[in-house]
Amino acid sequence: MTSTSPGAVLVLGGARSGKSAFAERLVVETGLSRHYIATGRAFDDEMRARIARHREDRGDGWQTHEEPLALAARIRDVARADRAVLVDCLTLWVTNLMLEERDIAAEFSGLLEAIRQAPGRIVLVSNEVGLGIVPDNRMAREFRDHAGRLHQQVAALVPEVYFVAAGLPLKMKG
Amino acid sequence: MTSTSPGAVLVLGGARSGKSAFAERLVVETGLSRHYIATGRAFDDEMRARIARHREDRGDGWQTHEEPLALAARIRDVARADRAVLVDCLTLWVTNLMLEERDIAAEFSGLLEAIRQAPGRIVLVSNEVGLGIVPDNRMAREFRDHAGRLHQQVAALVPEVYFVAAGLPLKMKG
Amino acid sequence: MTSTSPGAVLVLGGARSGKSAFAERLVVETGLSRHYIATGRAFDDEMRARIARHREDRGDGWQTHEEPLALAARIRDVARADRAVLVDCLTLWVTNLMLEERDIAAEFSGLLEAIRQAPGRIVLVSNEVGLGIVPDNRMAREFRDHAGRLHQQVAALVPEVYFVAAGLPLKMKG
Repeated sequence: MTSTSPGAVLVLGGARSGKSAFAERLVVETGLSRHYIATGRAFDDEMRARIARHREDRGDGWQTHEEPLALAARIRDVARADRAVLVDCLTLWVTNLMLEERDIAAEFSGLLEAIRQAPGRIVLVSNEVGLGIVPDNRMAREFRDHAGRLHQQVAALVPEVYFVAAGLPLKMKG
Repeated sequence: MTSTSPGAVLVLGGARSGKSAFAERLVVETGLSRHYIATGRAFDDEMRARIARHREDRGDGWQTHEEPLALAARIRDVARADRAVLVDCLTLWVTNLMLEERDIAAEFSGLLEAIRQAPGRIVLVSNEVGLGIVPDNRMAREFRDHAGRLHQQVAALVPEVYFVAAGLPLKMKG
Repeated sequence: MTSTSPGAVLVLGGARSGKSAFAERLVVETGLSRHYIATGRAFDDEMRARIARHREDRGDGWQTHEEPLALAARIRDVARADRAVLVDCLTLWVTNLMLEERDIAAEFSGLLEAIRQAPGRIVLVSNEVGLGIVPDNRMAREFRDHAGRLHQQVAALVPEVYFVAAGLPLKMKG
């Protein structure tokens, strides 16, 4: 974590905070070709509706890649000097890793390495989930811990971090 | 959402964050006559106790209006150039709209229009509720989505937005 | 709450936000001898693992004091002009007070007085828990209210307050 990736940004925020729309603006303003890596899986109608709404909100001009699990490999594939890549979102990826019982620490290291090496612009969106009451459910507590640790690791690596609330970005780093 | 209302402020914060006390100070410092629109309904003793405590905390010198549902109309009634109006809070209003199965999008548009046209000072308090774990309960998830969208819409409209934690206001806009 | 304690700091943050690591850095950079007051009780293996991990993260050079309840008295005992004291965390202390049915208001006053009088450096860590959906459980709602009120009272007293997210401190006061 001594070097930093010049083109990477972390955008944190709560549910419906406007974090994805802000992240999309960060991509659009680069003028580079726009790539979107969606980590969410459409398990049910509610999730399918959310994904469809996100896609509509983005509008045309984006190439979408669906990648629930092999995020590091996909970033290596997609990222190029002439591209801006939006990853939405890290917390859904963590959920998928937990459901598939992957090695979380190894996956996180792999992601950090992929971010560090990515050329072009890379914008990573994630949900801040640790500011409510401790969940009753053990898996939810583990998820919160994993997400929090990942945010710390990514925030230490990338040069720019924002916290978005009510659609307004607050610069935490950079 | 191109014009903004010069006298409107949004105050966001968590439970017991001191957001209401901060909002009251914003009203008091105007020197205008103080009006309070309470959206909460006293369903049970716990809620009654909360409402009574809020009223005591405010002290004298306020005129209180109770309005659980028709918030836009009430703002149009109460707001005047020589008055400062505190609305506490938007999230309870959203809860009431959902319980009464109102048309949320239409109600939100109505509120935005009322804020845009309100003369004098108007201070809107709301709970940030989207920074914990995704709730198990579908209605809670919908509520979170509605609240988040409303915060984004109001924050885009008004010229001043604060996030309050531990009684300390952080200016997000303005 | 008119005077303030020159050496006291409040560090707020969510679960796995990096708040403890940041608080430890505040202690270490004083160059004073390092004291750690742990309020958590190891009820089960999960809690024992968390406590052990925190202790490992801190490394050597710390003297640890376990104090689940009599926090004001313990601060008076431990704090000295040549010491830096880290209290981790206030929210676990509030949980313990509630489980033991102590007089919360009296305990809070006692703590504030101990902080006010403490010589040296004192760094207080606490969890922000009020930014999620209202909990179903009444005790959880009361806990949230107590924690929020305590944060407001401590933040009003001490000269320096930080909010930590993703390991990044945001100065709220000072």
